[in-house]
Amino acid sequence: MAPAGAKRNILQRLDEGEIVIGDGGFVFALEKRGYVKAGPWTPEAASEHPEAVRQLHREFLRAGSNVMQTFTFYASDDKLENRGNAQRFTGAQINEAACDLAREVANEGDAMVAGGVSQTPSYLSCKSENEVKAIFQKQLDVFVKKNVDFLIAEYFEHVEEAEWAVQVLSTSKKPVCASLCIGPDGDLNGVSPGDCAVRLVKAGANVVGINCHFDPLTCVKTVKMMKEGVERAGLKAHYMVQPLAYHTPDCNCQGFIDLPEFPFALEPRILTRWDMHKYAREAFSAGIRYIGGCCGFEPYHIRAVAEELATERGYLPAASEKHGSWGAGLEMHTKPWVRARARRDYWENLKPASGRPTCPSMSTPDSWGVTKGHADLMQHKEATSQEELKPLFEKAKASH
Amino acid sequence: MAPAGAKRNILQRLDEGEIVIGDGGFVFALEKRGYVKAGPWTPEAASEHPEAVRQLHREFLRAGSNVMQTFTFYASDDKLENRGNAQRFTGAQINEAACDLAREVANEGDAMVAGGVSQTPSYLSCKSENEVKAIFQKQLDVFVKKNVDFLIAEYFEHVEEAEWAVQVLSTSKKPVCASLCIGPDGDLNGVSPGDCAVRLVKAGANVVGINCHFDPLTCVKTVKMMKEGVERAGLKAHYMVQPLAYHTPDCNCQGFIDLPEFPFALEPRILTRWDMHKYAREAFSAGIRYIGGCCGFEPYHIRAVAEELATERGYLPAASEKHGSWGAGLEMHTKPWVRARARRDYWENLKPASGRPTCPSMSTPDSWGVTKGHADLMQHKEATSQEELKPLFEKAKASH
Amino acid sequence: MAPAGAKRNILQRLDEGEIVIGDGGFVFALEKRGYVKAGPWTPEAASEHPEAVRQLHREFLRAGSNVMQTFTFYASDDKLENRGNAQRFTGAQINEAACDLAREVANEGDAMVAGGVSQTPSYLSCKSENEVKAIFQKQLDVFVKKNVDFLIAEYFEHVEEAEWAVQVLSTSKKPVCASLCIGPDGDLNGVSPGDCAVRLVKAGANVVGINCHFDPLTCVKTVKMMKEGVERAGLKAHYMVQPLAYHTPDCNCQGFIDLPEFPFALEPRILTRWDMHKYAREAFSAGIRYIGGCCGFEPYHIRAVAEELATERGYLPAASEKHGSWGAGLEMHTKPWVRARARRDYWENLKPASGRPTCPSMSTPDSWGVTKGHADLMQHKEATSQEELKPLFEKAKASH
Amino acid sequence: MAPAGAKRNILQRLDEGEIVIGDGGFVFALEKRGYVKAGPWTPEAASEHPEAVRQLHREFLRAGSNVMQTFTFYASDDKLENRGNAQRFTGAQINEAACDLAREVANEGDAMVAGGVSQTPSYLSCKSENEVKAIFQKQLDVFVKKNVDFLIAEYFEHVEEAEWAVQVLSTSKKPVCASLCIGPDGDLNGVSPGDCAVRLVKAGANVVGINCHFDPLTCVKTVKMMKEGVERAGLKAHYMVQPLAYHTPDCNCQGFIDLPEFPFALEPRILTRWDMHKYAREAFSAGIRYIGGCCGFEPYHIRAVAEELATERGYLPAASEKHGSWGAGLEMHTKPWVRARARRDYWENLKPASGRPTCPSMSTPDSWGVTKGHADLMQHKEATSQEELKPLFEKAKASH
Repeated sequence: MAPAGAKRNILQRLDEGEIVIGDGGFVFALEKRGYVKAGPWTPEAASEHPEAVRQLHREFLRAGSNVMQTFTFYASDDKLENRGNAQRFTGAQINEAACDLAREVANEGDAMVAGGVSQTPSYLSCKSENEVKAIFQKQLDVFVKKNVDFLIAEYFEHVEEAEWAVQVLSTSKKPVCASLCIGPDGDLNGVSPGDCAVRLVKAGANVVGINCHFDPLTCVKTVKMMKEGVERAGLKAHYMVQPLAYHTPDCNCQGFIDLPEFPFALEPRILTRWDMHKYAREAFSAGIRYIGGCCGFEPYHIRAVAEELATERGYLPAASEKHGSWGAGLEMHTKPWVRARARRDYWENLKPASGRPTCPSMSTPDSWGVTKGHADLMQHKEATSQEELKPLFEKAKASH
Repeated sequence: MAPAGAKRNILQRLDEGEIVIGDGGFVFALEKRGYVKAGPWTPEAASEHPEAVRQLHREFLRAGSNVMQTFTFYASDDKLENRGNAQRFTGAQINEAACDLAREVANEGDAMVAGGVSQTPSYLSCKSENEVKAIFQKQLDVFVKKNVDFLIAEYFEHVEEAEWAVQVLSTSKKPVCASLCIGPDGDLNGVSPGDCAVRLVKAGANVVGINCHFDPLTCVKTVKMMKEGVERAGLKAHYMVQPLAYHTPDCNCQGFIDLPEFPFALEPRILTRWDMHKYAREAFSAGIRYIGGCCGFEPYHIRAVAEELATERGYLPAASEKHGSWGAGLEMHTKPWVRARARRDYWENLKPASGRPTCPSMSTPDSWGVTKGHADLMQHKEATSQEELKPLFEKAKASH
Repeated sequence: MAPAGAKRNILQRLDEGEIVIGDGGFVFALEKRGYVKAGPWTPEAASEHPEAVRQLHREFLRAGSNVMQTFTFYASDDKLENRGNAQRFTGAQINEAACDLAREVANEGDAMVAGGVSQTPSYLSCKSENEVKAIFQKQLDVFVKKNVDFLIAEYFEHVEEAEWAVQVLSTSKKPVCASLCIGPDGDLNGVSPGDCAVRLVKAGANVVGINCHFDPLTCVKTVKMMKEGVERAGLKAHYMVQPLAYHTPDCNCQGFIDLPEFPFALEPRILTRWDMHKYAREAFSAGIRYIGGCCGFEPYHIRAVAEELATERGYLPAASEKHGSWGAGLEMHTKPWVRARARRDYWENLKPASGRPTCPSMSTPDSWGVTKGHADLMQHKEATSQEELKPLFEKAKASH
Repeated sequence: MAPAGAKRNILQRLDEGEIVIGDGGFVFALEKRGYVKAGPWTPEAASEHPEAVRQLHREFLRAGSNVMQTFTFYASDDKLENRGNAQRFTGAQINEAACDLAREVANEGDAMVAGGVSQTPSYLSCKSENEVKAIFQKQLDVFVKKNVDFLIAEYFEHVEEAEWAVQVLSTSKKPVCASLCIGPDGDLNGVSPGDCAVRLVKAGANVVGINCHFDPLTCVKTVKMMKEGVERAGLKAHYMVQPLAYHTPDCNCQGFIDLPEFPFALEPRILTRWDMHKYAREAFSAGIRYIGGCCGFEPYHIRAVAEELATERGYLPAASEKHGSWGAGLEMHTKPWVRARARRDYWENLKPASGRPTCPSMSTPDSWGVTKGHADLMQHKEATSQEELKPLFEKAKASH
């Protein structure tokens, strides 16, 4: 395999019209494997159980990913400390271990390493711009030291904090991607996707887009709005999308967090590989060229994206050696009626049953803020400790 | 950690009333990770990608499994050959590699290694008892050489073939478990679960039960019928259950194979961890003490079984360090309405939405045989090559 | 039109193989129109609002009914008195008024008048055979005086009470039909449908079958079991079925009464006219020749039965002047995509959406008795006043 | 009862803040009773079967309606002729018969007679303003001759045609209501609900609102938008709403016509009486004071509206003598678990199951125009004969 230095970087690829396939979300996948705790969602497994993180990287690589994102989600010092449980590893140790794992596996194939930062408790508790930027700078220092290939500021609900992150990351001279976890209604301050995108491009982002919080088609739709905003403003950018692998037709502006099933009963919403084919096609048609996944994505979901775009990319991913296209692996099944499923239109048209006749097909999001005018909680910023939240919590209950 | 030799074996454990937790199904889990091909479902990954198989063993061990089942499903020579694709490894190599991986990880914790055989194409194509037994003997030779702790004959649709397997395995003097993939209607020749169990015990099985093909509560119900049969016959046995992690209220006597969603659109049917709590309690209450999983089980499903039975077992599994009991990890979430989900009754009573309003909640199984009097295909045996199947296939179509 | 006397009676018709189409249930239809109170379900409207009862008779006649059943459900004196609300009319007055209305409309077409009796509070509160029979005798006296064409004992949950009713009705020398409201599991004492049918035939019934409590296909299935019982016993009878117009895949042995939606939220379960085509065909194929409806049936449901069997009967009902066969009335719709629905296979294959994405597709019956061993309440007989029920009620609660 | 002349007219009532309860849709109700043909939907039953029409009026009166709307929907001459089937009655005869029936029943209680006109084929086939107005004038002549109490122009998809109707009706000096069958997206030319309302008020309408095509909450929402528009324009009006009795969360801008279930498989979508309580409260809270129903409404639906608003109106409707409030009629049921349903919160919180596990909960509207850019068919006007439609039809197919 070619050494990392010889690989073309993300902007070269995107400028040449190449499709860059991202990976899936690590916190959800590793939660199911037993290495991440739901609630805190912190990535100390990079230090504690490197073999598990390495294996997941490898599976995404085999599935077709061109990006090994460092497992540094919520790895800012303020988040790690805030979690209460005494950490055996410092933030720097975790961030460094995550870089090493990503690089090790990236070197096994045609993948780049992306260092990622995400929204901070400091911003939500109204710390100053300087304080928040210092948090990002600390993670960036590790990424520069470990020489990642490019940077991603992702999972921001407020464009302002994302701008600050982009401004910090841009000082490194590495390509910068910026990805918000918002829907068509805009960020939590009501800034539209188009305006968010313009601000991120002006702040220095080379690639802008959406990740997490909503299902694939909603995310693609939102990226389209970002693209229209950027084009209307006479600016230029590349576009990325890394959505949930869950169907969320019923969620409000805050996405899947507010669904009653979050995070422990989302199973019935998981997309099939065939849903992923539709997503990949839709994203490609919208002009998005960095196409990946977030929470809920397993390696076979990314493989489906790679298989849908195999013609455009010119090759199938390694893991397709274990996958017959459109169900072709069933051709040799012993039962004829199962063999009859070995064809594209069968899977494209199937409406899969939930097997849950006593359950509904849609839920009612249970955020208090959205329906009850919870202004302080929603329009301003969120507190981060139970102490800080207590008065808001009481107020919310009182207003019912 | 204690060496394997010092561990109590499965019969000691079961005789003392200990709960033995099994692992989950490897073929489905590894298919999603990119290492097994759906259709053939063969386990060559044990040789090709040992790191992936090892990692899955390790995750089940962390989740609480006391059994590392060798990844030898469909690893009989006749099945491996039948698959057509030129194998780079012999059957013996694959079986040996699988034993080594299981042993390596078992030694990392309190787990036994179980060597497994499953139904063969030879039986389905009406080969003689001797021929079929020779197939099993070949796998057994490996298991004896590698000194596995006990043996499992699993995934048999016909009790006769399972008896043959048990007879072969019993010659080794190791404990033998026998597990059929049938439902309350009995095996494909209509032998009732109670009668099946009696025959298996008489053939030499120490533990009898059910795996695969049906959802947990259906499997528990079927094992209860087996238990009643054994007790009625004045015999003694232990009981095991390793069901699907899919809800299958709509399937017929052949189980999930005949559901239109098999195997590529089963996502909406996946059990939540809370469904697993109910399953574990139900199995325990039924007197079953070897409780595990089959297709669809991920490590977190097994962890939920171990957490439900933590009081009875006296300890939590290792992976519970990354899991707050009944959602307790959400207690520190920044949004108060998400924190409100950190309690048992919330998750126990939640009816999770499918997020798929245009899909049904139940399907109609599409086997021709069951509804169309497909006697030759169903009541006799199944052919295994497309050539052999052709006349039956044509006949079936003609009868529509 | 021919006078009533000239019409062939029900046994002549059935003996000649003619299809006799029944009417629909009056209590549910008139409850929706504002003339019957849900709970008591008594038929005083026959006296209070004759124009409403007459109009409903007329609509069923137009829809194809050959039977005008007197609106005398729950019109036994013990039931009417038990209802507490001071009646302005005596039981005899109500029964007589109902006979007159049925006769008036029957004379407008090819229909017979059937006098009906149903289960009594006296039986449920353990009155003696003589006392219960005296109740039936009182209604029979009216039917004889008004010279109805035949008699129906319907809606019995215990075959014993139905036998008593048949014995009383048989003294009149008029043809007697007997119809239980049970499912495949048999009557509330566990007597199988086959045995129930044999006992009813031996008691003197000429036609036996099922009405109410279950959906059409379940009722047809139960009548088949009755027919098999009668034939096995070497007896002869005709068969009738008058099911619900509600889908009830989720109900237990007590039928739709125990569904949480009974009786005020059954709307999503209402059968379409196309479901009725399937029902009519299924009933006809099972050898049933008296085919009608019960609760939930509206005139258009009966019309659908008559349209499905139009070839066998040789004519369409009057109301088909206002109905294009299989949606043909849409052929002139202004929108082309609506016109495209004017064809049989469109409606036969349509899976109609509930429009209720937050609702389940199946419920859990909430009877305490069935799941909780409520022996006194269920296996013996039901008390009829709140006073009598109180101790059972308390006991039931205590046993939870 | 007071003679008609003594009754206060609709504007007196509305000016004094009285709630006026409308009736339900006659074409759907009478289709199910066998007197109206789906497709043409014409009201010749007023002449052919007056007893059926009279009975339905009476049921709505008993249920609480203050308005007996003449059964003259689609009774314009151009529509009646267009239907092809030779009519035994002239348009004038039908309109006159309908007025007589409405008046006869209105005189039995506290109800007014409203003469109604609806959209015409003439407008859709691009006839001139004068020609279209002449159509309305012909119906108005009958209404004036029969001295109806007020007038309603309803079921218009284009505000322009509704304006023309209002202009004609206003010449009579009787109060005029104007009701469009549009949703929040506005009329078929894209005029917003607010702008539509302003134009209708300026054309002379005293009451403006919405009927048909959408479910109750969508209609209430649209009337709110109309009210905001009128108030923004500094104008004054009263408001009315007469929605479907079907849940239509999945329909597009053309309403339920485009749902695949229209018109013969809408059963699972029918609102319960409890849904109607919510609707009535919502409409009242929105400031709407003329509250009725359209297609799908049965008398018990109107009764539920009247029961919800009984306190505000000061009385219950006549038909409540046959209805225990919030299920109170079940208090005397023989089964304790059914008696437990005799309470408000039970029915308010129940999520009724569809009983159809193989059906979805939402459909995809199948209009070609909306999704396929069917500009000529949708944005201009609809043709009315198959001949006229043919070229559009072909064009539409070609564009797929």
